[in-house]
Amino acid sequence: MIEIVAAKDMELKDILSRDAEKAEDVSQTVDKILENVRLFGDKALREYALQFDGARLEELEVTAEELQAGWEAVDARFRETLALARQNIAAFHEKQVRQNFVMAEQPGVVLGQRYTPIERVGVYVPGGTASYPSTVLMDVVPAKLAGVKEIVMATPPGADGSVDPAILAAAKIAGVDRIFKIGGAGAVAALAYGTESVPRVDKIVGPGNIFVATAKRRVFGLVDIDMVAGPSEILVVADGGCDPAWVAADLLSQAEHDRLASAVLVTDSRPLAEAVAVELKRQAALLPRQEIARASLAAGGRIILTDSIAEAVEIANAIAPEHLELAVEDPFALLPSVKNAGSIFLGRCVPEALGDYFAGPNHTLPTGGTARFSSPLGVDDFVKRSSFLYYSREALGQVADRVIEFAQREGLAAHGRSVAIRFEEKQV
Amino acid sequence: MIEIVAAKDMELKDILSRDAEKAEDVSQTVDKILENVRLFGDKALREYALQFDGARLEELEVTAEELQAGWEAVDARFRETLALARQNIAAFHEKQVRQNFVMAEQPGVVLGQRYTPIERVGVYVPGGTASYPSTVLMDVVPAKLAGVKEIVMATPPGADGSVDPAILAAAKIAGVDRIFKIGGAGAVAALAYGTESVPRVDKIVGPGNIFVATAKRRVFGLVDIDMVAGPSEILVVADGGCDPAWVAADLLSQAEHDRLASAVLVTDSRPLAEAVAVELKRQAALLPRQEIARASLAAGGRIILTDSIAEAVEIANAIAPEHLELAVEDPFALLPSVKNAGSIFLGRCVPEALGDYFAGPNHTLPTGGTARFSSPLGVDDFVKRSSFLYYSREALGQVADRVIEFAQREGLAAHGRSVAIRFEEKQV
Repeated sequence: MIEIVAAKDMELKDILSRDAEKAEDVSQTVDKILENVRLFGDKALREYALQFDGARLEELEVTAEELQAGWEAVDARFRETLALARQNIAAFHEKQVRQNFVMAEQPGVVLGQRYTPIERVGVYVPGGTASYPSTVLMDVVPAKLAGVKEIVMATPPGADGSVDPAILAAAKIAGVDRIFKIGGAGAVAALAYGTESVPRVDKIVGPGNIFVATAKRRVFGLVDIDMVAGPSEILVVADGGCDPAWVAADLLSQAEHDRLASAVLVTDSRPLAEAVAVELKRQAALLPRQEIARASLAAGGRIILTDSIAEAVEIANAIAPEHLELAVEDPFALLPSVKNAGSIFLGRCVPEALGDYFAGPNHTLPTGGTARFSSPLGVDDFVKRSSFLYYSREALGQVADRVIEFAQREGLAAHGRSVAIRFEEKQV
Repeated sequence: MIEIVAAKDMELKDILSRDAEKAEDVSQTVDKILENVRLFGDKALREYALQFDGARLEELEVTAEELQAGWEAVDARFRETLALARQNIAAFHEKQVRQNFVMAEQPGVVLGQRYTPIERVGVYVPGGTASYPSTVLMDVVPAKLAGVKEIVMATPPGADGSVDPAILAAAKIAGVDRIFKIGGAGAVAALAYGTESVPRVDKIVGPGNIFVATAKRRVFGLVDIDMVAGPSEILVVADGGCDPAWVAADLLSQAEHDRLASAVLVTDSRPLAEAVAVELKRQAALLPRQEIARASLAAGGRIILTDSIAEAVEIANAIAPEHLELAVEDPFALLPSVKNAGSIFLGRCVPEALGDYFAGPNHTLPTGGTARFSSPLGVDDFVKRSSFLYYSREALGQVADRVIEFAQREGLAAHGRSVAIRFEEKQV
């Protein structure tokens, strides 16, 4: 099911399946849907709800009554779990909130930077089997903390026109302002262009299938989008002191996501490598989603043997995994040498699942090696910076020559004149 | 040359020319260039240098001797101006540097967030008439402050195979590590894929023509890119107390950039509006680039009359301009009501040119209304966040039920098992 290879015998680029880009091209279909929603608005959305979700909808928006009914349909225990998760997520993301700054260090000169929230944000939440209340919390809580004025959720309805109560409960706890029963590329179009009933947003976040991802790429620029996530990935760096059963369980928790998911173990211990391979076989057989898990381990699964844990971390940095577990004796000592990873799980008792749902850090993370340059979803994704500057006329006078000289060098005379004219004798 | 319209008689979407997207489609040409550089590396780059720049190159990289020669070819006064600008830009951007944080508020639980610099960054610098040393400083200084290990500059050579000395001097002062004589889509390809002599980077920033912009879009995902900038824009909010000559000069400093540039005045004073219209005519005639300035004023120029300055700011927020001047009596009082703008110039003596070159805030700003959701280039663009979490086994035990419950709700049994297994009796 999974092969053990020595680090020196392999090419890093072969380690993770990074074929998200090569996915089926659906752009023509998506373009048609975008166009129809742009032109026909709600009418098109209703047609797509019938066509794709089998739902005959009058109202596209979830009513207060439906929201309340969904809330009550969820047992008190899970509502409490949702509330605790929200609390942990909020506690972590509050620390990300930025402060404005101002500089007044030279006479007559004030410089600064302000943060303002993005006005209106759309959160896409997939339906069906991939309906994840945790995603609602992870996407909405940072937006609320950022001060976003209105958060609009889009999620496809079931054939009976209803929305999963767990999703509604999570939306209520997270503080979503409006919820629409729209899915796929049509939902992205509605959020980007606006329709009679769906307000146009400034940014669209949230996971989705290839149609949703393609639609997000298409409307990017008109609105902002979060990352277009590829298949989920875990890389576990483990030393010989690990329990192979625990390591295998963590790898499988990634492998069960989908066939493209990648689960990689990097260890300096051959005994552990071999024991984990055995455990993967044994435990996979116990899983309801064992077919998916086996398929993704066969395709994207690897066990890599290194000469040292330091070499294992180098490999992790080169791969830049979405999730990195440091299942070693002293994980905090290794942390400084980690350069590229979305979220880092420290120690032998910190399975990825803890972060996926509950601990507080975001679970929307850079995939496909993009952790080399991008970050987990956070409050930063829901604000923007503006810089500001004030100079007194005297202060401007002191630098006027420099600015004019620069303008002349760049062949932009009017730039220079706009400074010089402030010191000319009045013409009239 | 420019029309005066009342705010109530117009549609906001018509105000700014936002046709950057509709620019000539060059994707086929660009795809071919990307492919050739990917396959043939330096050989392709040399061919394109000959074909597009008329330069016959042996070495693609600028040598230490060339760099020094360029440095000496620039007069001492301008080298000093570059150094002062660098100092101001560094002083402002230092304030943007992020701090890691760690939370240790529950027993056995440590959460945190670390910043790590992007490893290697490519900075594209256009050649020819659009060769701007200020851009070198604005792109490189924040990257240095972010801790980027290697900064690689790409700029097209002249027909004699040389690079503009002012660009080399700026690169030296800013601290660029390596400089290559490569331009256009080929340069973007070289930075994204790497060649025999050009190292592969993790992120590409910097302005460029439609070929460069298209190539950046194409390689986005494989590497990160900064914004793809549209035509430059200024919106001046001015009250009746302004000198029309100054306001006109500021509008013209934007209009001279290119024919697509937009210069908009919004004022509550008809006398000012009329006087500025007259001044625009008069001053345009004095400009070396008067044809460009007249063309862009005719296409994208507007003077908008409002009933109040408050209404003027509302219009500014709806347009979300790249540059916003608040040329009013008390600009600081207006600042809090500004929601969407890239950079804000406060007062009557703060022409945009001051920020373009010298004051310190970045001049790479969101265009085309993207200030609704994006920010000026800054240190944030050269670092990425990673979150980390540690739980002791006891701490995990206390939340295990919640995590397992969540996993079951989402139909991901293996996620739950990865937690449960840490508390099972050993099988062996």
